[in-house]
Amino acid sequence: MALLNRIFQVVNGMFPAEVAHAHCDIPCGIYDPIAAKIAAQTVQKMVVRIQALQQPAADANTGERASYVNTLSRYIQVKEEHAQLCKKELSILWTDYFRPDHLENHPDLHSHFWTAEKLAGRNKQTVDLDAAKELVSAVDEIAEIFWSTKGVQYKDEVAEARFGT
Amino acid sequence: MALLNRIFQVVNGMFPAEVAHAHCDIPCGIYDPIAAKIAAQTVQKMVVRIQALQQPAADANTGERASYVNTLSRYIQVKEEHAQLCKKELSILWTDYFRPDHLENHPDLHSHFWTAEKLAGRNKQTVDLDAAKELVSAVDEIAEIFWSTKGVQYKDEVAEARFGT
Amino acid sequence: MALLNRIFQVVNGMFPAEVAHAHCDIPCGIYDPIAAKIAAQTVQKMVVRIQALQQPAADANTGERASYVNTLSRYIQVKEEHAQLCKKELSILWTDYFRPDHLENHPDLHSHFWTAEKLAGRNKQTVDLDAAKELVSAVDEIAEIFWSTKGVQYKDEVAEARFGT
Amino acid sequence: MALLNRIFQVVNGMFPAEVAHAHCDIPCGIYDPIAAKIAAQTVQKMVVRIQALQQPAADANTGERASYVNTLSRYIQVKEEHAQLCKKELSILWTDYFRPDHLENHPDLHSHFWTAEKLAGRNKQTVDLDAAKELVSAVDEIAEIFWSTKGVQYKDEVAEARFGT
Amino acid sequence: MALLNRIFQVVNGMFPAEVAHAHCDIPCGIYDPIAAKIAAQTVQKMVVRIQALQQPAADANTGERASYVNTLSRYIQVKEEHAQLCKKELSILWTDYFRPDHLENHPDLHSHFWTAEKLAGRNKQTVDLDAAKELVSAVDEIAEIFWSTKGVQYKDEVAEARFGT
Amino acid sequence: MALLNRIFQVVNGMFPAEVAHAHCDIPCGIYDPIAAKIAAQTVQKMVVRIQALQQPAADANTGERASYVNTLSRYIQVKEEHAQLCKKELSILWTDYFRPDHLENHPDLHSHFWTAEKLAGRNKQTVDLDAAKELVSAVDEIAEIFWSTKGVQYKDEVAEARFGT
Repeated sequence: MALLNRIFQVVNGMFPAEVAHAHCDIPCGIYDPIAAKIAAQTVQKMVVRIQALQQPAADANTGERASYVNTLSRYIQVKEEHAQLCKKELSILWTDYFRPDHLENHPDLHSHFWTAEKLAGRNKQTVDLDAAKELVSAVDEIAEIFWSTKGVQYKDEVAEARFGT
Repeated sequence: MALLNRIFQVVNGMFPAEVAHAHCDIPCGIYDPIAAKIAAQTVQKMVVRIQALQQPAADANTGERASYVNTLSRYIQVKEEHAQLCKKELSILWTDYFRPDHLENHPDLHSHFWTAEKLAGRNKQTVDLDAAKELVSAVDEIAEIFWSTKGVQYKDEVAEARFGT
Repeated sequence: MALLNRIFQVVNGMFPAEVAHAHCDIPCGIYDPIAAKIAAQTVQKMVVRIQALQQPAADANTGERASYVNTLSRYIQVKEEHAQLCKKELSILWTDYFRPDHLENHPDLHSHFWTAEKLAGRNKQTVDLDAAKELVSAVDEIAEIFWSTKGVQYKDEVAEARFGT
Repeated sequence: MALLNRIFQVVNGMFPAEVAHAHCDIPCGIYDPIAAKIAAQTVQKMVVRIQALQQPAADANTGERASYVNTLSRYIQVKEEHAQLCKKELSILWTDYFRPDHLENHPDLHSHFWTAEKLAGRNKQTVDLDAAKELVSAVDEIAEIFWSTKGVQYKDEVAEARFGT
Repeated sequence: MALLNRIFQVVNGMFPAEVAHAHCDIPCGIYDPIAAKIAAQTVQKMVVRIQALQQPAADANTGERASYVNTLSRYIQVKEEHAQLCKKELSILWTDYFRPDHLENHPDLHSHFWTAEKLAGRNKQTVDLDAAKELVSAVDEIAEIFWSTKGVQYKDEVAEARFGT
Repeated sequence: MALLNRIFQVVNGMFPAEVAHAHCDIPCGIYDPIAAKIAAQTVQKMVVRIQALQQPAADANTGERASYVNTLSRYIQVKEEHAQLCKKELSILWTDYFRPDHLENHPDLHSHFWTAEKLAGRNKQTVDLDAAKELVSAVDEIAEIFWSTKGVQYKDEVAEARFGT
């Protein structure tokens, strides 16, 4: 953390407090793309689970069928909700955090967000592992831009541990 | 990340997949205490801002007063919502993630959560920087327990960068 | 109601107002475990209905199948939402109402809540009448503890009328 | 409970299951006006607290003023939310539970609900103890009608214990 | 718009501002039945889509079946949510906008709302194009009453363009 | 409506159904910028009311002060919620309705949305009638683009009647 703190102090030194305040939204929220990332990974995990779920056998009884539909519809619901949450978190970053001076440095900022939010929408409409992985990547790219505006090198070190087995 | 991955593989090796699955809630959500941490930090930031907000002068006009109340009540509202969000995220960890075998290894698990959630409640009721910092610490302690159950050393490296100036 | 009022006055007499106020959360909400009970009973009723729902015949037309899926997925959704509501109401009681002095008198308080909230989670994941009945019982046990702290004998006299036929 | 059960069996005997089912909404929810009652009592309690809250002295410091506004705006917010919840719960009873045959027996049913929901709205707009008590009474009258349709004599025996001191 | 403006000025002239204010709810919201109309049309569109959705063939693979259930359950969910939204928007009009003097001029006001809200409920429970069309019509009738109280002739000119193909 | 229908038929003729379907999001929602417009107008109305609200006199009693704070904080809350709703409705249009081929015809599409959503944010942070009017105009410009993609001439004929006096 020592290195990171040092980088951060340098960055702070470059943008004196009063200037930062001039640009700053009130209330200065606490922004972190990790919320969008977790949502995107949850979408991916649900796709994995939906695709792995065994259909009940042809001679399954009512209880087995009800259990199957219960599980499947919950996976779909969780996928839906987290795709929506991902869109919402991205939307907060786009409209509340990013400012015109960020746009100058990242002229493709709008495209990044439009693409990522449309991918979230596609993941609602489909059960498609590639689309889910694309969403996770698109969020990671935005996270990289976000942290670069704060002079921090982005790394999601626990991404795999979070996703689990 | 190489080291972390290696640790994670060792941990995975210790708990074979089928055993893990036996304990595993369906749907295996994606859990991460970072959501509770961000919410707790937002509470802290709102306390800082509320305490720094200047009251309008005695001879302020209606517009200045309306603007003051608008800002103050929004800070209070954001504090309220994120204290609630913090409780909700903690509650998900307590009831969905942690299992009886975790409780055996961490016999004070329930106390940790009760204390942290009560702190979230206290931060709703007060404007108290110490209470806010205690909440952040209580969430950090839970995060440490959480990650220890996955064999990962907890570190929130961007805590300061996220909190901002 | 006369008897109940008398009991209540005695209880009030034992804890003078100013002492009660010292322990009291602000804002002193209105707590009542009946909200968790109704939610738990709704979960149970949905399980009954899901298990009673007839699948469409093999030669059913599209309209009959759509109607079946519409009904089934709504039952599952209502079960999900009320299991979640049950957890939320229990969580409010645990963190907002119960205080350290209650814990002294009921050392298994945390276990009661952990068990009940985990049962709510299990009822989301399954379609299991026994699990639903266990949830209703677990909430009733908490309601008994709750009302005992107010010196009131707990009875849900309209439980059956509410559940209906 | 014996008497109540007996009454209930008689009532059930009068409306054979298949007839009841013919009128019954799917999914047959679990209706109970107690949710609206608790919400109305919470509104009343908030009015009591708002009216009892002491303004900070003229020479109060910023911390005392912030604490005062925090508490006052939370009371107002809780009043607002529970007045809204009361409306929502009443609306569910009016549109989901009550049927045309109930309306025949209670021709003033619509007026009861319109009045009660408008009272909930008035309690949002004002800080008025009489309006709050009127709302509680209006909900009680609806509860009486509700339980009469089930052949149950309505009594909220813990109303005072719930309201607290 | 000239004609409409003129009509509106005449109407305003008939109800002087101070009188209007005396009746007026605080805060004078912005009411418009178009929100209920859009919700009702969305319900209708979902019914059309559900009925047009092709079931997977008997020999469809798991991916095709998952995709089918994903789409079907999302249509049902959207239908559910917009039927609920329609009820909520109608409820706002009934309790917040309409006043006793409106009821005098439209003695069947309560019936209009009860019918429309019950239709919204029926559209949740069924997949029935006639019920959906009835809901749209019932909302249109309420919209006509609403605008007549403002002296405006109701016309939803883009109803078809909004519904789309 | 005859003219409008004719225009609509022509437009439909230009984009045959199967082509439209190829571009079409599933589920083809019902999009209409009027929801964002109503939200924006509500923001404007709240600003008008906040600015017109009289502060209590220096010697006002507690009841008058409580009533004042109740009203003011409710106006601020309604402003907040509708500014947020406006952002949400704009976000739906941007990510769900508009497609790459629309962007080609309206290369400043992203700027329109970013500006309008940032204006919604500014209206949360301030009590500023000019900012509120700018938001209404920004939504109107987006509505014009939206309807032009459907070959419909945009006009909000009841804008003034909706805003009221």
